[in-house]
Amino acid sequence: MPHRVNHIAIAVPDLAGALAFWRDALGLPLERRETNPEEGVEIGFLALGELRLELLQPLEPQNSIGRFLEKRGPGLHHMCVEVEDILASLAHLRGQGVELINPTPRTRPDGVRYAFIHPRSTGGVLLELYELP
Amino acid sequence: MPHRVNHIAIAVPDLAGALAFWRDALGLPLERRETNPEEGVEIGFLALGELRLELLQPLEPQNSIGRFLEKRGPGLHHMCVEVEDILASLAHLRGQGVELINPTPRTRPDGVRYAFIHPRSTGGVLLELYELP
Repeated sequence: MPHRVNHIAIAVPDLAGALAFWRDALGLPLERRETNPEEGVEIGFLALGELRLELLQPLEPQNSIGRFLEKRGPGLHHMCVEVEDILASLAHLRGQGVELINPTPRTRPDGVRYAFIHPRSTGGVLLELYELP
Repeated sequence: MPHRVNHIAIAVPDLAGALAFWRDALGLPLERRETNPEEGVEIGFLALGELRLELLQPLEPQNSIGRFLEKRGPGLHHMCVEVEDILASLAHLRGQGVELINPTPRTRPDGVRYAFIHPRSTGGVLLELYELP
């Protein structure tokens, strides 16, 4: 069972413009900015209680965030929850008939294991699972 | 400054179907179900760390959740953050040029004061502020 939300991701066309609201007007602390060439996004990480907001700006219009913006406009993109054991969670969900985008977890450079669950199984929400190292 | 997320709201056409994923497959505890005739929704409240997921099913197709589903399909609908002093927060945001859907807070029967901020000012996110009683 997931025990908390790790982050909520928001797709934006312009990170500076989004920071003008979330950091400057609303007052959330910007923890860091990061360019992720593999995903093709620039990310602003803002702290909000026990979770983070991730503002995702595509670096090219044809990647997944760019296509999302073109199709749906800016807004809430996905939600990520933490689990203790991602292999067990994925096996359990598969057994329940849940459609997995990543049937086996992927691993980031910092050791986080993650997998996405298809919105068709969740009521329209792109849901990410994280297992922290 | 908001200190935490109170809830994340998900618009769904069928609460029972959404609970089959979020409660039964994923394992989140359902705290309660509630029919809100004023908003025209049936709501399932699920606990997830320090926040709640709210699954919103419209009771009629022409209210705001019904129109959201028709236009965008099911998925993430809005996010709500808690503030200490909603009047001060709204005055501050207005001074920053932020567009408010509710320029003055509304009050729920349980004493929660709330107001919505327009997605045009947030990078596409319908954002709710809560001041708990």
